[in-house]
Amino acid sequence: MALSKKPVTGMKDILPEEMQIRDYVQNVIKDTYRSFGFTPIETPCMENIANLTSKQGGENEKLIFKVLKRGEKLNLETAESESDLVDLGMRYDLTVPLVRYYSNNANNLPSPFKALQMGNVWRADRPQRGRYRQFMQCDIDILGEPSDLAEIELILATTTTLGKLGFKNFEIRINERRILKAMASYSGFPEESFDTICIILDKMDKIGLEGVSEELEKEGFDTSSIEKYLALFTQVENSENGLTTLCDTLIQAGTLEEEIKNNLSEIIESVERTKNAEFRMVFDPTLVRGMGYYTGTIFEIAMPEFGGSCGGGGRYDKMVGKFTGNDVPACGFSIGFERIILLLMESGFQIPKQPKKTAYLIEKEYPAERLCEVIAQAQNERAAGKQILVARMNKNKKFQKEKLTAEGYEEIIEFFRDK
Amino acid sequence: MALSKKPVTGMKDILPEEMQIRDYVQNVIKDTYRSFGFTPIETPCMENIANLTSKQGGENEKLIFKVLKRGEKLNLETAESESDLVDLGMRYDLTVPLVRYYSNNANNLPSPFKALQMGNVWRADRPQRGRYRQFMQCDIDILGEPSDLAEIELILATTTTLGKLGFKNFEIRINERRILKAMASYSGFPEESFDTICIILDKMDKIGLEGVSEELEKEGFDTSSIEKYLALFTQVENSENGLTTLCDTLIQAGTLEEEIKNNLSEIIESVERTKNAEFRMVFDPTLVRGMGYYTGTIFEIAMPEFGGSCGGGGRYDKMVGKFTGNDVPACGFSIGFERIILLLMESGFQIPKQPKKTAYLIEKEYPAERLCEVIAQAQNERAAGKQILVARMNKNKKFQKEKLTAEGYEEIIEFFRDK
Repeated sequence: MALSKKPVTGMKDILPEEMQIRDYVQNVIKDTYRSFGFTPIETPCMENIANLTSKQGGENEKLIFKVLKRGEKLNLETAESESDLVDLGMRYDLTVPLVRYYSNNANNLPSPFKALQMGNVWRADRPQRGRYRQFMQCDIDILGEPSDLAEIELILATTTTLGKLGFKNFEIRINERRILKAMASYSGFPEESFDTICIILDKMDKIGLEGVSEELEKEGFDTSSIEKYLALFTQVENSENGLTTLCDTLIQAGTLEEEIKNNLSEIIESVERTKNAEFRMVFDPTLVRGMGYYTGTIFEIAMPEFGGSCGGGGRYDKMVGKFTGNDVPACGFSIGFERIILLLMESGFQIPKQPKKTAYLIEKEYPAERLCEVIAQAQNERAAGKQILVARMNKNKKFQKEKLTAEGYEEIIEFFRDK
Repeated sequence: MALSKKPVTGMKDILPEEMQIRDYVQNVIKDTYRSFGFTPIETPCMENIANLTSKQGGENEKLIFKVLKRGEKLNLETAESESDLVDLGMRYDLTVPLVRYYSNNANNLPSPFKALQMGNVWRADRPQRGRYRQFMQCDIDILGEPSDLAEIELILATTTTLGKLGFKNFEIRINERRILKAMASYSGFPEESFDTICIILDKMDKIGLEGVSEELEKEGFDTSSIEKYLALFTQVENSENGLTTLCDTLIQAGTLEEEIKNNLSEIIESVERTKNAEFRMVFDPTLVRGMGYYTGTIFEIAMPEFGGSCGGGGRYDKMVGKFTGNDVPACGFSIGFERIILLLMESGFQIPKQPKKTAYLIEKEYPAERLCEVIAQAQNERAAGKQILVARMNKNKKFQKEKLTAEGYEEIIEFFRDK
């Protein structure tokens, strides 16, 4: 029988060395988020396919692993399209399942509800270095909190966690969907082109102001609108307090409400004054974030060591209403767990404070009576908090001991049958 | 839009209360197994469908959730059967994936390799109380250890864990596939009927000796064989040391090797003499265990509080060879995680040593300046290891405080805008 030794394409086996770091990081994340009052929850890895294809997930909906119907429900002969064959799908993020969970269980949950989720998600993306088809996400969300206390707590909790993992000199970039909208409307772009403009703006860090200008022209927008729009970004760049300057322009023109400016300033200032990690809050009017469900603030982690984002989130006040008919304010922050692990592995990260590891190597044909004594000794040491490996001595003992040392066994005690 | 609030049929949302217990139990399991030198690993939740349908999984292979092919590989028009539509499946246990992982990575793993896996598995079983279609398994396995040191360490590690969770007065029932075989052959049953006899014997705890006798008769076996067979079980029941009595009978008749008896005795005695939890090792000649892959010792946890097994395992020396062509000795023990959680929840289990939980309730329209001070205070308390929830005061404050108290917040501090 020829069975395949390789994991499924695009997914990976996690070896002991990486697993140790993952476990450590998961514990730091859990402990820190718990100290902020976030409550761990779990949802099934599968959802009904209709929930996953309800246009909440943007491009990710094209990447769903779908699960075949079972038993009588599967009828291959009458099936006309893919949708006749499947009833379930693997979740592509943790936000859609969270909102379903909240809608299902709200009566038994605290209000506001501060949820912590750590779990795998699946996307049938083109496999590439560092990007896998199964990967871990770590999300915190606050449901039922309309004020900016939600944003402040989410950003503080996430940055405190990153600080505890040794990250510093990173940035939290922040923006507001409604500022993005106000900028477009101030410049005279038609309202229905908001999404198109955002998709182009999102490329700013790659193609620059000129590139954005060219792409907007290609779409056929008025030159005067484009110039007015791009001038706003230049204005932010050249002013000491970009947020105030930009918002004041938009407020005077009547396309932005003052409350939105105050709200965002308050978040930035409160975080700066109460943070306990080394990072900067940066207002970034070019920040867009892809997911269609965001309604207000949006934010992202930018690491100097890593081109691109290491996590992000924002406010999505309209999603619960899709399940229950009643909107509930909601805001979340997701850490890019796999990227954090990659950065730590590449930097030669060492886990602090490991318990002492000892290996007992027992020669073959060691008498059963005395083996019992060795095991009893190991049991006592384990009860005292030590890590004891009891193993048979291999033929190639030198090699075995070298490997054990590499695995962190500081002490190796040998037991010979004739001694 | 009408989205479904319920989780997928047969799967469940895990509420905060249960999640706390699950997290605690997972940590106890991980810490204890680590102290025995087991190394956490992880494999993807999906496997290539050919690996899952290779007859290693017995009845579980009928319960696989299958994953639809994607993109060009899916051709609905030319598909003639289910197998043309799928390329992946959800794992139904952790043993088949472990053996694939070991076969794929053996060069980078210690020898012997002591693996710890905690992960979800999926089975499209008929949903019923306490049995779900997605559930957690916790397995430890030792690959590359031919001697009974593997069994001893697996049983000690598992029982130490159960002891730490407060379980006592349970039994570890143990048997040997080769003793089962020897009993059938001693009684004169034809060799090819071994599986049929085992399936009937497996019902002993439900239908008793007479029931087993009737079912064997129905299958058309010789009455003399049936009588001889059942007499063996009576003999074990009536003798002080059932294992010795039975094995001596089988050894004298030439159907069992003495080494197998000595091996099993050594495991039972070594565990009894070195255990640090309150349980009994019991030789049980009626223990069968379903999985087809077992080749030697088999064992099971029997809890007085719970009808049926709370976990089990055994030796499967032939499975690695299915992947690599070369057999590697292997032995594993799986804890029935969901049953353990159910038993703990039903017994009103309390998690020991929780950090103190404090809630800060802030009145609406509390000035931004002073909010910052409250958050700063929370940040200091969190850094000192406390759990601080910062939340807005709800309109119905009395109800909010009652709920917080129920969630374990011992201290609730209120912040009013006018004070």
